[in-house]
Amino acid sequence: MIEKIHHVAIAVRNVEESARFYTERLGLGLREVKVVESEGVRIGFIPCGETLIELVEPLSPDHTVAKFIEKRGESLHHICFQTPDIRGEIAGLKEQGCTFISEEPKLGADGLITFLHPKSSGGVLVELVQQAEA
Amino acid sequence: MIEKIHHVAIAVRNVEESARFYTERLGLGLREVKVVESEGVRIGFIPCGETLIELVEPLSPDHTVAKFIEKRGESLHHICFQTPDIRGEIAGLKEQGCTFISEEPKLGADGLITFLHPKSSGGVLVELVQQAEA
Repeated sequence: MIEKIHHVAIAVRNVEESARFYTERLGLGLREVKVVESEGVRIGFIPCGETLIELVEPLSPDHTVAKFIEKRGESLHHICFQTPDIRGEIAGLKEQGCTFISEEPKLGADGLITFLHPKSSGGVLVELVQQAEA
Repeated sequence: MIEKIHHVAIAVRNVEESARFYTERLGLGLREVKVVESEGVRIGFIPCGETLIELVEPLSPDHTVAKFIEKRGESLHHICFQTPDIRGEIAGLKEQGCTFISEEPKLGADGLITFLHPKSSGGVLVELVQQAEA
């Protein structure tokens, strides 16, 4: 079951620099900036209604996000759907023939996460998240 | 003032075909499919929490969305923020040096809309919408 869009991610060269459009121009707030070692990125979350904008800055030039920016420029990178039961969701999607970048969810910035392989989701990079207990 | 993310748009070759991942796999619903003549596209809205996923299908091969798909494949296209006062928002953003694809809002699928020029929004195509009165 999908509850909502947890975040929309934008690939950026620098979190604080890119956050300025959303904070200074649109009046939104940059909630937190943190390094997610397991993913090799720095991220910043900008809350907007019930959803977040996630700015994703690669920590090394050979990171897939760095290569994405090299090819496409700074732009929309992926969309993340929130589910209360990520393992159940993965099992259901696998039964329907979907494949995952990693079938075993891992700890991301805001809970357990996994990414579907884009060939399973119409070319769009789709992430699932089950939020950590508060 | 930005209230929420109104929709996240995905450029697709065919609305119904691309909707299947979201409806059959994720259990979401395709709310409506309609032609927006003024924009030269067919769209389908898929509600998810307070936000919509908008599938955007170009009606002609020389449409900017068709060229986008040709270059990047079917992928995330733009993000749309909802404001209660689009003219006030445009005026404020102009004062801060932002430029727009069209400064005069026009009637889109779900209210008055305009697009910022991506050079004003860090490379990301950003739309604003003021929803039509119910």
